[in-house]
Amino acid sequence: MNLILIEPEERRADGTLRLVDARARHIANVLKAQPGDSLRVGVLDGPLGTGTITSLTKDAAELSCAFEDRIPPRPRVDLLLALPRPKVMRRLWAQLAALGVGRILLTNAWKVERMYYDSHVLTPEVYRPLLIEGLQQARDTHLPEVAVFKQFKILVEDELPRLFPEGLRLLARPGEAPSLRSVVAGSSPARVLLAVGPEGGWIPYEEKLLANHGFKPVSMGPRSLRTDTACIGLLALVHATM
Amino acid sequence: MNLILIEPEERRADGTLRLVDARARHIANVLKAQPGDSLRVGVLDGPLGTGTITSLTKDAAELSCAFEDRIPPRPRVDLLLALPRPKVMRRLWAQLAALGVGRILLTNAWKVERMYYDSHVLTPEVYRPLLIEGLQQARDTHLPEVAVFKQFKILVEDELPRLFPEGLRLLARPGEAPSLRSVVAGSSPARVLLAVGPEGGWIPYEEKLLANHGFKPVSMGPRSLRTDTACIGLLALVHATM
Repeated sequence: MNLILIEPEERRADGTLRLVDARARHIANVLKAQPGDSLRVGVLDGPLGTGTITSLTKDAAELSCAFEDRIPPRPRVDLLLALPRPKVMRRLWAQLAALGVGRILLTNAWKVERMYYDSHVLTPEVYRPLLIEGLQQARDTHLPEVAVFKQFKILVEDELPRLFPEGLRLLARPGEAPSLRSVVAGSSPARVLLAVGPEGGWIPYEEKLLANHGFKPVSMGPRSLRTDTACIGLLALVHATM
Repeated sequence: MNLILIEPEERRADGTLRLVDARARHIANVLKAQPGDSLRVGVLDGPLGTGTITSLTKDAAELSCAFEDRIPPRPRVDLLLALPRPKVMRRLWAQLAALGVGRILLTNAWKVERMYYDSHVLTPEVYRPLLIEGLQQARDTHLPEVAVFKQFKILVEDELPRLFPEGLRLLARPGEAPSLRSVVAGSSPARVLLAVGPEGGWIPYEEKLLANHGFKPVSMGPRSLRTDTACIGLLALVHATM
């Protein structure tokens, strides 16, 4: 944990903060901090700051916090991901938040199994703590917005104009396609929406629908990768290129 | 499984191949192949090819194989990784092989816990099948060579001249440093060795030893990432840049 994140409602006007949960135990047992030590703190979807420990027991920590005026910029990349197997999705949440994603749009596709939608990894009770874990790792405060869609066509045709009105839409695909770098560097976009298909790939109808809605194909390279490996590699590439 | 990999000793001069293990069951139950169908096959550390199913039951498959003359090029990236937690290392094996790594050098460091070395994830019995799983995903035949070192100084000073005699040595680090792309593109190396530190980072002595042995710092970007996320993102970047 490289950052202690707090909820907006935990922030008090006088800068004092009292923690009595896993965060307090982390400060005491893992960071092995002492009264007087300063820690990085942050408000979810708000500013970063510094917290000085004023009191510490093994399960309660009191801090005096000073927050910056500005809020860190929101990650400029959004992800449109065909819902992977629950086991893979569970592993991805923290990593996506750590890499930096503004929005995560999960969608159905021909090769997505319907039963994936019944998994509890799609409930905020499961994924929100995992996203926060990723933010605490990466020292960011922007909680990715998550939206789950069961109808791919409705998402692409009706929802995307609102969710991603402007910016560069990319469709990662195996095989021959321009490199991600050449496409991103060629258009200097303010935001990028990256579409990553299911393990078995999009079917031609889905690829065509995406192409008709402005998604430009970019190569994932010659190697076929698992969804989670591909997502992480591609997000690292988009960030490095922007 | 995008490729059926076989051991060199399973290859017969007449091109016939008989599988009676998980590979046969995969062909029958997951790929739902039929006699007459063609599958991609490959020989470990050898050529790729095509296998036509001549006979198939639920737990035995016979194929007639034709292999290419040339062997695919060995991945041009090697990884020097401070040994991560066993749980993380277990997850990484298949992903490293899928991304493409020639050699994986695991090393001790000040912030690596000694007990990590006792884990069975460092035994070939555990990691070899995971590496093969990654190769079958990515359609590669080159099994990464794995070497485990308990003494960082001996590895860097005495072993590296033999293990990585020529090429570009990179040290991935958080904070300010030139971008990976600028350093790699500036030297067009035949091979790259990428060093990734432990979760808590290298200590100054270790960073200095690496710098004294030709490792050039490259930025991991402003976000602090978990070892596995960092490895995957950095390897994707190196491959995309080479």
